[in-house]
Amino acid sequence: MGGLSVRAASAVAEEVLLARAYLSRVGEPASIPLWGYVRAHGPVVAWRRIRDGTAPADVLAVTSVRRASADPAADLEAAQRCGLRLVVPESAEWPHFAFAAIERTGAARLARFGEPGGRTHSPSGELVPPLALWVRGGADLTSMAVHTVGVVGARAATAYGEHVTAELAYAAASAGLTVVSGGAYGIDAAAHRAALAAGGETVIVSAGGLDRPYPGGNAALFERAADRGLLVSESPPGCAPQRRRFLTRNRLIASFATGTVVVEAARRSGALNTAGHCRGLGRPLMVVPGPVTSAMSVGCHDLLRDEERPAHLVTGAADVLALVGGLDTPVPDAGPPVHGGRRDDRADLVDALDPIQRQVLDGLPAVRFATPDEIALRSAVSPREVIRALPALDLAGLLEASDGGYRVARRMRRTAR
Amino acid sequence: MGGLSVRAASAVAEEVLLARAYLSRVGEPASIPLWGYVRAHGPVVAWRRIRDGTAPADVLAVTSVRRASADPAADLEAAQRCGLRLVVPESAEWPHFAFAAIERTGAARLARFGEPGGRTHSPSGELVPPLALWVRGGADLTSMAVHTVGVVGARAATAYGEHVTAELAYAAASAGLTVVSGGAYGIDAAAHRAALAAGGETVIVSAGGLDRPYPGGNAALFERAADRGLLVSESPPGCAPQRRRFLTRNRLIASFATGTVVVEAARRSGALNTAGHCRGLGRPLMVVPGPVTSAMSVGCHDLLRDEERPAHLVTGAADVLALVGGLDTPVPDAGPPVHGGRRDDRADLVDALDPIQRQVLDGLPAVRFATPDEIALRSAVSPREVIRALPALDLAGLLEASDGGYRVARRMRRTAR
Repeated sequence: MGGLSVRAASAVAEEVLLARAYLSRVGEPASIPLWGYVRAHGPVVAWRRIRDGTAPADVLAVTSVRRASADPAADLEAAQRCGLRLVVPESAEWPHFAFAAIERTGAARLARFGEPGGRTHSPSGELVPPLALWVRGGADLTSMAVHTVGVVGARAATAYGEHVTAELAYAAASAGLTVVSGGAYGIDAAAHRAALAAGGETVIVSAGGLDRPYPGGNAALFERAADRGLLVSESPPGCAPQRRRFLTRNRLIASFATGTVVVEAARRSGALNTAGHCRGLGRPLMVVPGPVTSAMSVGCHDLLRDEERPAHLVTGAADVLALVGGLDTPVPDAGPPVHGGRRDDRADLVDALDPIQRQVLDGLPAVRFATPDEIALRSAVSPREVIRALPALDLAGLLEASDGGYRVARRMRRTAR
Repeated sequence: MGGLSVRAASAVAEEVLLARAYLSRVGEPASIPLWGYVRAHGPVVAWRRIRDGTAPADVLAVTSVRRASADPAADLEAAQRCGLRLVVPESAEWPHFAFAAIERTGAARLARFGEPGGRTHSPSGELVPPLALWVRGGADLTSMAVHTVGVVGARAATAYGEHVTAELAYAAASAGLTVVSGGAYGIDAAAHRAALAAGGETVIVSAGGLDRPYPGGNAALFERAADRGLLVSESPPGCAPQRRRFLTRNRLIASFATGTVVVEAARRSGALNTAGHCRGLGRPLMVVPGPVTSAMSVGCHDLLRDEERPAHLVTGAADVLALVGGLDTPVPDAGPPVHGGRRDDRADLVDALDPIQRQVLDGLPAVRFATPDEIALRSAVSPREVIRALPALDLAGLLEASDGGYRVARRMRRTAR
């Protein structure tokens, strides 16, 4: 990992890296005065003037706590020991394409900031770009952030929410989208896990320093994501994930993502904050509805009900890919026409199945053959249940088997393919 | 019931009643040429000319099958024996207020009908008013059709759909709205039953003649609805409920209702036809979302996703009443702020409850006191479970008890009342 750090750093002047490391340490994320000052004078001048106390008063005010004690060289060394590298706007790895929207909103916010009444601070952080990003993982941030989808939601997710998330993230990752989320319990973790299970890529955007995974219970997930994707944080090593940092972190998820899906959200969920950032950036906000009896869908329904800026209601990966998949993204098969198509003898066969069998049928791919383990993941039932359900589906003529596994029988597929 | 028939008929000339009974028998519902002809010449002239074969060719074409054999005097007698009366536009009981929208769309459709290319027939029936209505029940059609809400949905409803329907229809009926639906199994029946359970009024709009309730399994429900509300059909006694009549019947549900709620609908559900009529009439179409994994919510999500004419997403009776309740309809309390309000100590108390206790808490009324049986109905849990849950809610200080029963504790109610 140390080699990567050197590689990423090689193209960037040492003093720029030191300056950005310093700025990342002294300021809270998403500060308009600090971002504007660095933008106007460059990181090296900003670093020196803040350190020397000669920067403007509003910049000194937002950097006062740590500006004397910050030691960027020590931070960069500590980071390297943890396998982290610092990615800066001057580096080739900076995701300029993904950050086009937040660059625009940042510039607009900065312009208003100088106007009378423009100096208010948003409690959830302004939509201004980060000054630098601490990154861990073998993947390249630029390429990870081109075709991306944010998948966020409640920590206290229901089985329904986790099931829908897994289906959606698996299909999105299979179609080549990078799944971006916050690494939290619940929906976030289900999204990262499904992307990894699909053999796809995932980015965890963390609120605290990457030396300590938060939450600790997802440490193994963070390791796997670092192996096959990236961990990203605006905070230097050693920073605790404070409430304000979760909110500013959310703007980064929305900035990386071509569009963001909210799967489950209670009325005051942090996912609604991410949703707000997604809207603020002018990117597609997608929302999965759920039972109106579920507190975990109340926030989702509120987003869908917003009369001024209604979110896109999405019911599965096909809807998501249609909105953010891009022209070159293959839209995966939406599965057998249980939930659609014509009402005919196929529907009757399906009606005769028990719920588990039906769920397994829903999880069968249409084109390639899948193993029982893969089907278990797609169906959100246990592999044992899959193995128990397959003979019944076979007898009913609903599946095709091969050496490679199982898929939906040809006659069960949509006629309009 | 015979007395009612005489009462309703008393203000209408005998020959008008005979003419309308005849027209109701000879034409299929929702025929533009027939409605336009009756509108232009009055029912008595239309009756004679159709019977004598001197009406225009397009009117004769749509009345050819039964125009010689129809016997309106016999039909009126048979109806009276079944406790039915014929309500006609010339009667004081005709719901002119409710039918204002379909009168308007009918006139517009009639005007276009004369234009080149205007003679196409809609397979689900045109939005033209009925020529007459066969009615059973002690209530008055005019007053029943002033504050109304249509609640429709899948016959093969899920437990979720029936639960949401019951909650919604119960609250709507409690707030004084007449609940209109089609008397079918599933959502329709749940809506009628909940309205009756609330002590409210309900109208069953039937596709076939009212001498034979359809479906037969709901015969007892039809009896109860006739006692406390109304049965209404465009078809004279003896008419079988054919497919086309279900579609034309749906336009009447939408016409009676100030707005219509679709609770559950598969992709090709008849409820979507009612939804289309509701939109065609320019009235609020409300849709309850559900799990994206449920085939019974696919049609609902399609309605909500319609980009040109999105439906209103509703999650409960409060949303429905806000849209169609009218200024004088009291909006019932939406329950404790489990799903809303400020996140505070009340939310923590609620978090500590088990799911059944939470459901019972949701079912507690805010103002009046309710008996355990009533709470069971509102909560959709068994009375036994209610009785088991109440002590825990009491200990937690979440309820208030009196001789009359139980209600939500004052501190649990919305602060913004």
